[in-house]
Amino acid sequence: MSSIFSKIISGEVPSYKVAEDDHCFAFLDINPNTEGHTLCVTKTEIDRFLDLRPNQYLKLMEFSFRVGQAIQKVIPCNRVGLSIIGLEVPHVHVHLIPLNSMSDVTFEKKVALSSNQMHITADRIAKEYQKITSK
Amino acid sequence: MSSIFSKIISGEVPSYKVAEDDHCFAFLDINPNTEGHTLCVTKTEIDRFLDLRPNQYLKLMEFSFRVGQAIQKVIPCNRVGLSIIGLEVPHVHVHLIPLNSMSDVTFEKKVALSSNQMHITADRIAKEYQKITSK
Repeated sequence: MSSIFSKIISGEVPSYKVAEDDHCFAFLDINPNTEGHTLCVTKTEIDRFLDLRPNQYLKLMEFSFRVGQAIQKVIPCNRVGLSIIGLEVPHVHVHLIPLNSMSDVTFEKKVALSSNQMHITADRIAKEYQKITSK
Repeated sequence: MSSIFSKIISGEVPSYKVAEDDHCFAFLDINPNTEGHTLCVTKTEIDRFLDLRPNQYLKLMEFSFRVGQAIQKVIPCNRVGLSIIGLEVPHVHVHLIPLNSMSDVTFEKKVALSSNQMHITADRIAKEYQKITSK
């Protein structure tokens, strides 16, 4: 059975899409720690990041770097954090999270954002990503 | 002034060293979330990972992948997690954390290990790292 992330990539499940390339796909986390919290996933469905082939892993990390730069341009924050955990969805995903304090990385405190706010944030990050990749 | 991590790299401050290459250095976190919690740092002292040059960032991520593989061989766990936060020490560092539950990634729950245990763990990970890099 396809993971929820594979269904998002195929469009079967809707998402607030941020970016895509040949190997990876990025969209806003539906239950964000902070505004702009984004997930970057591999198009190949693999559970643990250490089980990716080294070149698959590096493509995901390069993609996440560019998406992180776009988030940093759009969301005021001390810095963007990056985490790979994967205890809940068995499909490799990189969390990119705008951070101001350690409570933003615990995954315990969440923010509620309207669908309209999520759309606006995703579109703004997507536009910055386009600028970064077209340089 | 040099960061605490630059002092660890130079040997001015002692550490439980795990691995080193031309660009990066890895050692056990002195206040670990779980046994085997390791920090991979750039030898260049830069605060935010998004301010690294892309090739510096990719070298750090490749290095962290190999160290992560070594940790996975040594420490029984559900998976190894990877986090870049950086709110406390302004010198880019990748946390590699053996995970079994979400409480292992909150940075609130810590484990106390003796110096002897830390030495043994660092040596075991270092040996696996050597095997991985000599392949």
